[in-house]
Amino acid sequence: MRLRLDLSYDGAGFHGWATQPDLRTVQGELTSALQKVLRVEEIQLTVAGRTDTGVHARGQVAHFDLAPAVLESVTGRSDVSPLASLVRRVNGVLEPDIRVRAIAMAAEGFDARFSAIWRRYCYRIADHAGCRDPLTRGFVLHWPRNLDEALMNDAAEALLGEHDFAAFCKRREGATTIRTLLDLEWERDQSGVLVGTVRADAFCHNMVRSLVGCLIAIGEGRKPVTWAAQILEARARDSAVGVVAAHGLTLEEVGYPDDLDLADQAKRSRVVRTLSR
Amino acid sequence: MRLRLDLSYDGAGFHGWATQPDLRTVQGELTSALQKVLRVEEIQLTVAGRTDTGVHARGQVAHFDLAPAVLESVTGRSDVSPLASLVRRVNGVLEPDIRVRAIAMAAEGFDARFSAIWRRYCYRIADHAGCRDPLTRGFVLHWPRNLDEALMNDAAEALLGEHDFAAFCKRREGATTIRTLLDLEWERDQSGVLVGTVRADAFCHNMVRSLVGCLIAIGEGRKPVTWAAQILEARARDSAVGVVAAHGLTLEEVGYPDDLDLADQAKRSRVVRTLSR
Repeated sequence: MRLRLDLSYDGAGFHGWATQPDLRTVQGELTSALQKVLRVEEIQLTVAGRTDTGVHARGQVAHFDLAPAVLESVTGRSDVSPLASLVRRVNGVLEPDIRVRAIAMAAEGFDARFSAIWRRYCYRIADHAGCRDPLTRGFVLHWPRNLDEALMNDAAEALLGEHDFAAFCKRREGATTIRTLLDLEWERDQSGVLVGTVRADAFCHNMVRSLVGCLIAIGEGRKPVTWAAQILEARARDSAVGVVAAHGLTLEEVGYPDDLDLADQAKRSRVVRTLSR
Repeated sequence: MRLRLDLSYDGAGFHGWATQPDLRTVQGELTSALQKVLRVEEIQLTVAGRTDTGVHARGQVAHFDLAPAVLESVTGRSDVSPLASLVRRVNGVLEPDIRVRAIAMAAEGFDARFSAIWRRYCYRIADHAGCRDPLTRGFVLHWPRNLDEALMNDAAEALLGEHDFAAFCKRREGATTIRTLLDLEWERDQSGVLVGTVRADAFCHNMVRSLVGCLIAIGEGRKPVTWAAQILEARARDSAVGVVAAHGLTLEEVGYPDDLDLADQAKRSRVVRTLSR
């Protein structure tokens, strides 16, 4: 049987998602907690979004497989299901900077990584004294200069759709940098914090933080609105594009198709894409 | 001249507002920062809400008096007013867990403490796994059992209005415990967190956290809805009423009358109230 986990974490205390020897990682902590509570020797977690060091998640999704007999051994209060007991016990073992929000039986064909059709991140910026809140400083970037979100939105429009985002990615050997950017929009929340919503089928390494770095330069007026499209067209990293701090970035939500399409989506995602235009 | 400060802080790192020898307090840090930036030997801060250890503030208000010549000596960028420069420079000296949001010339008769007509606090509780967000754990209480906000709101209604809140206060010699409770209402925010809004003309020591402790017992079903009114009527502290943790509590806003009424309100507030009924 396959179980789906929905989880949140404060990235400040982790060297990112992926297990690394001698470093505290989200995957490492969660794997240990599940192994301890379920009393099994090996749990293999697959995740939707492999977040970098310092990046947060509110809507992260992962899955793991388990023999059904193991779950039955998780006994809790008689009025609570084994899965609800498992959530409670795993959270009891985990430090408070990771919380498992829910564990559910996965639908047939579900794969946390390959069934996902989009990932939605938010990047938060407090660009003036009136909206810099010490209580949220762990997940909001305090930027010293005012930003014009109208300019940032104008520039962002040229980036939407399927493109080779090589200019905004840390290249990995043999991996494509073609992605479909579905949303990239800036809005102020009620406290005045500038919230950038970035949604794509998938992201390559550093992509959100480079996109935000580019748009900040435009929002400050240091670069013209057309600069974002120029960078994209060049398909090569430009040292003028800063990669903004990790702590402003949060993985908010992962989108999946209806249950019937899960397996098909997983098959499609495994095919390395080539630029279709 | 009198200056009004609007400020926010994360209470976790402070032994409350009021200066204490050898302890880090909000008043202590802010006074030092102002004295340093303004190069004066003594700044006397008066505050609207003297928060306890661990209690946060988003909408705290304070004032201090200054010779006009001192402010003129705060030179900054020529395109920025002296008060905006002062905000920038004070924030540059302060640690990131306090932020001055604004400094303005106070209206005639303004007193941050005595002109205030109400204080609004919020208490935040995550009472189920789905809404426990590690990113907000510094200002949201994680409560292990589900709460019924309808019961809590029913109970709260009986507490509204002017009463002797001695049952919910840590008594201080010679101080009245009569207060007017203007709002006490629970609502879930979009993430499912239970937010209690508590507004009164003023609060006595521990009052909000005792009111919340009482209502949690009712929301859990451990006590009947009528229990809150019984506690109030007894006018004596009851050990069955818990004082909940400080970190769930945030001073959100302080209300002042129109500028013309400021001095009158300050005069009225200085009169120790007696129970009018």
